[in-house]
Amino acid sequence: MREKERVLSGIRPTGKLHLGNLLGALDNWKNLQSQFQCFFFIADWHALTTEYADTAEIRQNIAEMTIDMLAAGLDPNESTLFVQSQVPEHAELHLLLSMITPLPWLERNPTYKELQQELSNRDLATYGFLGYPVLQAADILIYKANYVPVGVDQLPHIELTREIARRFNFTYREVFPLPEAKLTEFPKVPGTDGRKMSKSYNNCIYLSDSPEEVVAKVKPMITDPARARRYDPGNPEVCPVFDYHKIFTPVVEQEYCASGCRTAAIGCLDCKEVLLKHLLAYLAPLQERRSQLVKDLMGIQETLSDGSKKARSVAATTLAEAKEAIGI
Amino acid sequence: MREKERVLSGIRPTGKLHLGNLLGALDNWKNLQSQFQCFFFIADWHALTTEYADTAEIRQNIAEMTIDMLAAGLDPNESTLFVQSQVPEHAELHLLLSMITPLPWLERNPTYKELQQELSNRDLATYGFLGYPVLQAADILIYKANYVPVGVDQLPHIELTREIARRFNFTYREVFPLPEAKLTEFPKVPGTDGRKMSKSYNNCIYLSDSPEEVVAKVKPMITDPARARRYDPGNPEVCPVFDYHKIFTPVVEQEYCASGCRTAAIGCLDCKEVLLKHLLAYLAPLQERRSQLVKDLMGIQETLSDGSKKARSVAATTLAEAKEAIGI
Repeated sequence: MREKERVLSGIRPTGKLHLGNLLGALDNWKNLQSQFQCFFFIADWHALTTEYADTAEIRQNIAEMTIDMLAAGLDPNESTLFVQSQVPEHAELHLLLSMITPLPWLERNPTYKELQQELSNRDLATYGFLGYPVLQAADILIYKANYVPVGVDQLPHIELTREIARRFNFTYREVFPLPEAKLTEFPKVPGTDGRKMSKSYNNCIYLSDSPEEVVAKVKPMITDPARARRYDPGNPEVCPVFDYHKIFTPVVEQEYCASGCRTAAIGCLDCKEVLLKHLLAYLAPLQERRSQLVKDLMGIQETLSDGSKKARSVAATTLAEAKEAIGI
Repeated sequence: MREKERVLSGIRPTGKLHLGNLLGALDNWKNLQSQFQCFFFIADWHALTTEYADTAEIRQNIAEMTIDMLAAGLDPNESTLFVQSQVPEHAELHLLLSMITPLPWLERNPTYKELQQELSNRDLATYGFLGYPVLQAADILIYKANYVPVGVDQLPHIELTREIARRFNFTYREVFPLPEAKLTEFPKVPGTDGRKMSKSYNNCIYLSDSPEEVVAKVKPMITDPARARRYDPGNPEVCPVFDYHKIFTPVVEQEYCASGCRTAAIGCLDCKEVLLKHLLAYLAPLQERRSQLVKDLMGIQETLSDGSKKARSVAATTLAEAKEAIGI
């Protein structure tokens, strides 16, 4: 039997996951895990590139996110789930790759300057921040990953990883396959205030929210601002609630809500009731699994530690091969 | 009993060691090993910062240099002798320190630009080359070294290590003692052509040279160029052979040679015979130990592997403490 191709993807330990993460990453990961040999990891070292001064919650976040990942259907028997810092081989390959990575490749990295401006309240002119694409390359190459699921904004980083792999293969010998970006279209889920769903905007529906909390967040959701009164007709195309319908509600009911909105036949709360029925049904199995998982925090740590061990055995093999190629 | 203070020093695997290395480093290390808890290592990762494209001889060089170090009197039961790449904890601490190290500290490093100009035949504009003071900081701090024996030119690097340690201790909590440079005056030993003793000038007396080879290198040594003929008087102060006398020859015989030279009472070959008597006597026990050591290359590998294990247990303890302080 031919071995399955490998997929690698990581997520920073930013805290408990929300609906946006579920649709944008976890659901996709879940779909990939049967077709590929998947390595999914929590990138705690990457968190340090921007959050080195504020690390108090990293460990708690890792536990929360692991629970969310498992609740979302990632199966540690099928995929390798691990924590980056529990696989020190990444750090060693990062060091080795740093020796052959030209500085201009990093200085030209478009997100380098962008992020520095975006996060201008922090001092990001550090050696580690400049080098995070090298760390990312090590993360990918140490598993000889064939595919990396990313959004369009991440394409330059995958290209950089390929450049570094090419340079290594050329300088020493062929060790690393060139990974490919795996672009996936994700349904966009806005926050409850219509902006991008983000922890810092306080507009998230979290996977850890109870059904009651979900109801309490959906009921006051922003809708079409033109529909100020019950008898004003609305436009579903500009309504964040309708963005949710497109994802969670079957088409017939979507149409019922859309025409009811346009004709003012139904009110926004009626529309939200329809959404809640489907959203809660969608989340129910996840919430059920989650409520079981939180009862066994030791088990969560074990899952990560077992996964990290599995990851290490693969990583150590690649690292040995890389060192042999270099001759150290 | 109070624990001895710690000393750390490393040497790049440039190849077999010469008289300059012996007097400039190994003899000093040997003197330190009874007073301090010493960690001496072969810095193979550091070699990659400048030699990443030419790694063919690194492993052979490590073996040769270990033999030289042991022959010179370093005692693996007293000091910890190890190979940097066999202690991957250095790479992990390097990654962690990279996150808090401001880029300008590295860009301002005086040797960064100097070395780039000096080695202009190589492309040194790499991420790893820029970051080698961070790796050096990790090397030192992971053993909580109190002293680092260096020459004056290395002082800025020790200062940078102290800055990085301070920043870590301030950002997280007090983990690293601030290491101090240990300046030592070394007798300068020129090459056989009067220039700096250096492999690339082909003017070295190697620790691996047999007595016959030493004789064959000393006899044609450059002397005072004003002393063209046997009956021309010479000036010992400008004679490389006399630099050797100052190191190896007892004062009375030094004076005999000096006045004999100034009065043309003795010839250069007479003077070199006196030197050879003392130089060969000085080297004899080293050459004797060396000839035993080369018979057991497996033993050399074991010494390094045992030393690296000893080093790892110390390094792992510090690393765990650093990770705990950061909170990952």
